Amino acid sequence: MQVLLVNNRFKESTEFMAEEIAARLRELKADVLIDNGAMDISSQLPDKLDLIIVLGGDGTILRAARQYALKQTPVLGVNMGTVGFLSHIEVAELKGYLEKLIGGKYVLDKRMILEADILENDHLVASVHCLNEVVIKANDLHMISFDIFIDDQKLNTRRGDGVIFATPTGSTAYNLSAGGPVIDPSMKAFVITPIAANKLNTPSIVVNAEKIITVTPVNCSGAIIGMDGQVIYNFKKDYRIKIKQAEITLNLVNFKQQQFFQYIDQKLGR
Amino acid sequence: MQVLLVNNRFKESTEFMAEEIAARLRELKADVLIDNGAMDISSQLPDKLDLIIVLGGDGTILRAARQYALKQTPVLGVNMGTVGFLSHIEVAELKGYLEKLIGGKYVLDKRMILEADILENDHLVASVHCLNEVVIKANDLHMISFDIFIDDQKLNTRRGDGVIFATPTGSTAYNLSAGGPVIDPSMKAFVITPIAANKLNTPSIVVNAEKIITVTPVNCSGAIIGMDGQVIYNFKKDYRIKIKQAEITLNLVNFKQQQFFQYIDQKLGR
Amino acid sequence: MQVLLVNNRFKESTEFMAEEIAARLRELKADVLIDNGAMDISSQLPDKLDLIIVLGGDGTILRAARQYALKQTPVLGVNMGTVGFLSHIEVAELKGYLEKLIGGKYVLDKRMILEADILENDHLVASVHCLNEVVIKANDLHMISFDIFIDDQKLNTRRGDGVIFATPTGSTAYNLSAGGPVIDPSMKAFVITPIAANKLNTPSIVVNAEKIITVTPVNCSGAIIGMDGQVIYNFKKDYRIKIKQAEITLNLVNFKQQQFFQYIDQKLGR
Amino acid sequence: MQVLLVNNRFKESTEFMAEEIAARLRELKADVLIDNGAMDISSQLPDKLDLIIVLGGDGTILRAARQYALKQTPVLGVNMGTVGFLSHIEVAELKGYLEKLIGGKYVLDKRMILEADILENDHLVASVHCLNEVVIKANDLHMISFDIFIDDQKLNTRRGDGVIFATPTGSTAYNLSAGGPVIDPSMKAFVITPIAANKLNTPSIVVNAEKIITVTPVNCSGAIIGMDGQVIYNFKKDYRIKIKQAEITLNLVNFKQQQFFQYIDQKLGR
Repeated sequence: MQVLLVNNRFKESTEFMAEEIAARLRELKADVLIDNGAMDISSQLPDKLDLIIVLGGDGTILRAARQYALKQTPVLGVNMGTVGFLSHIEVAELKGYLEKLIGGKYVLDKRMILEADILENDHLVASVHCLNEVVIKANDLHMISFDIFIDDQKLNTRRGDGVIFATPTGSTAYNLSAGGPVIDPSMKAFVITPIAANKLNTPSIVVNAEKIITVTPVNCSGAIIGMDGQVIYNFKKDYRIKIKQAEITLNLVNFKQQQFFQYIDQKLGR
Repeated sequence: MQVLLVNNRFKESTEFMAEEIAARLRELKADVLIDNGAMDISSQLPDKLDLIIVLGGDGTILRAARQYALKQTPVLGVNMGTVGFLSHIEVAELKGYLEKLIGGKYVLDKRMILEADILENDHLVASVHCLNEVVIKANDLHMISFDIFIDDQKLNTRRGDGVIFATPTGSTAYNLSAGGPVIDPSMKAFVITPIAANKLNTPSIVVNAEKIITVTPVNCSGAIIGMDGQVIYNFKKDYRIKIKQAEITLNLVNFKQQQFFQYIDQKLGR
Repeated sequence: MQVLLVNNRFKESTEFMAEEIAARLRELKADVLIDNGAMDISSQLPDKLDLIIVLGGDGTILRAARQYALKQTPVLGVNMGTVGFLSHIEVAELKGYLEKLIGGKYVLDKRMILEADILENDHLVASVHCLNEVVIKANDLHMISFDIFIDDQKLNTRRGDGVIFATPTGSTAYNLSAGGPVIDPSMKAFVITPIAANKLNTPSIVVNAEKIITVTPVNCSGAIIGMDGQVIYNFKKDYRIKIKQAEITLNLVNFKQQQFFQYIDQKLGR
Repeated sequence: MQVLLVNNRFKESTEFMAEEIAARLRELKADVLIDNGAMDISSQLPDKLDLIIVLGGDGTILRAARQYALKQTPVLGVNMGTVGFLSHIEVAELKGYLEKLIGGKYVLDKRMILEADILENDHLVASVHCLNEVVIKANDLHMISFDIFIDDQKLNTRRGDGVIFATPTGSTAYNLSAGGPVIDPSMKAFVITPIAANKLNTPSIVVNAEKIITVTPVNCSGAIIGMDGQVIYNFKKDYRIKIKQAEITLNLVNFKQQQFFQYIDQKLGR
């Protein structure tokens, strides 16, 4: 049983917590490796991880999942105080669940992952897995314009600050701030939401994830391509971005019956 | 081959067109019945219809589909001048397609139908199939309040003018006017959009159609329940509304490759 | 010194409070009349009131102001528990302010009032003062359509559930629920906000209150005209509605320095 | 009579037009100077300009007004093909109006100007006149946070992509794209509209221009301050931005009766 423990590199307190949990897990005969961000542990990683435990907010979970969980390893997000959508249990509850964790007694909440391929004149420049969203946006005061294709259907040229292509998991993040809808995380879909679009008549569009979305620049000088708020590319004028459903999923350990709608609603409401 | 021709009861011009098309269809050996709204044709209806052709806008198609298409009969909507989302061909094109129609040479675009059950103290009062949406709304100046459950998850009590539960097909109708997102018609989902909600923090929510939505009144005096803009009930205080995916679908005849996104985008944009 | 005390007719607790405050005011040599909604006091009203004290929420204050304050009498709204925008002090604070009140030691916060004139073929049917808003809206499932003129400028025909014409005071009520902006109550302006408009491209419009707005029906069968949520007319097809700034203002007693923006922001935010 | 003719530096065609108009104006005894962007004409500028004629879209008019019109000189915007809000006549109409222009026979449409002062530890770094808006926004993927004060009222800390402070003239530009309301250009007001705000409950706020708005950074690393889309500053952590109504106005020559609402509505509607 190979367990990786990841803690928020910017919060020292999570480091002690990680050590404590690691000790408990080792008592339960698990092999535990800790990534506290201080050094590169890639050389020590076993071929196959059985479980990833992340202590921290959604940002830390996103980062860890991008780095380690793309081989379908189950991920348990542990809430360290701030409010998040990906962490299902509180740190105080974790110890009570360790045996179940080691015994594999949990349900997996499989979340769709988006794959964004950047092509330059048909050559693949990068292929990035995104749990939340790909964003194309202006990085200064100029509006940008671009074309969106859904399979082979070309939409009207978009003009404005940019656009968000979010997964259902990402629908409660940047997409929601920009006015987009919340999407049931059990669905396979992309939600396309404009950012300060020049025209008022561009609602969010929810697209079946079986389709492929392509974005080509019309005037994107100064535009950036952002993935999960963590990876940035400049949008060169020969670039084309293909967005599709990844073959893998993010497998969140879900001890409790998922109460997504109730949770998001309480978080938004008062 | 049993064909039913339905024309817009309010537009006389569609009546002549219906007669002309009926004549052509009969030349092609089809049995044709016409519903021009002038008299009740239910006694003349054969046990099984093979095709329904509707001359008119989305309202006429909705009405005809509700009345005749719930046995999965293919429906062809024919655009008579106004712009619609359910009619795929123009009346001028229809004659060129009649042989293909009779020969069954077409693809079906299967649209999800919503079933709304109204229960009074657990007794079924009505069960209505909706192609577009169920709406709960105040019919005067008073705000109404109600609770929404998604399976067994209770959302915060909603307060405002009302709420829309739309199918993907209905997402471009009232839902869009109220600020909701456009949903890919190939998806099975409900979109819940508030109408002039008292709180600003209630985005649209897109729910997997495998779930069941229940609405119970908190203070709904003066509220009405509307289905597809055509059927109305008063929302009594002992009522409970269950919303689920119907077992049947609306089967739209789709001669041309469907270009939904392009079409909606052109219609909304300029 | 003639004081009128108004309490919420539906909350018995405010009646005892009213009696207690009346006793104190009489000790301070004021003549006090109480309207507890139980009987018509109009025959007892003096020619001129010097002060109106309202115990209750915004609805009660609106009602009292419409009934008694149109002669510019200062109105003090006293918050009885619920949160409101028009009541500046809590009931627990009131006793400490009674001497200042009797002595006229306060600043008046003068709020713009909207006058809505309903004309039928140029004959005046009704002229209503509104502190919050005039609303034109459908009372069933049908969309309505109407024309709006700003002075002599005709806007595109509007279609949808309806429209709100709010004062700055009313901007935080129905207008805000329908997505409209908050307007500084020190301004003289109308804010026009559509309700579930059929087109997406109709933002709220803020109009200088020196202008006159006229609304004429295009297809308003089943539409109602609502004033402050308290007065209703059916929108007949020969009606024309003129909306202008009233010559009088609502004069709110404002003991504390007004902190409108901070207050609304705290109320909306978390 | 000193006339300055400004043409769009990027459109050669406007240069020939400018020469032709200049010749006509000289026949009418006016002294005419041309700024075609090719060289710096500041040394040739007379002490006092009597009229500025700008051939070009809103961007060119904004640029010219910022450069030359801050001494209250009347500005005539001439539409060269694209659609704009600041140009009141078409180039084809201009020649028919030249005598009236020289004779001063026109009405001035006085538009409010916003003054944005950037202070670093209470030292004035820059004071910029804005005709449209001041924008504070993130220039990468990170959200920014900042505090807004209206006079001495502190609002809740804002978090998101940024915020727009627009004049009524600017309300139809970036503010409208971000979902803000249209403001009557005869009003003196600021409209504050969030850009992809982290919380849903932050409506646009319209503030009386007699008030002073101050913005202080909470976490603005990577934020920029943009004026009219043409001037950019980095938002340093010791900066404070004061926004107030400028003492001067932009004086637009308005030959025809202003039809602002009708125009904006036709431009937005279909």
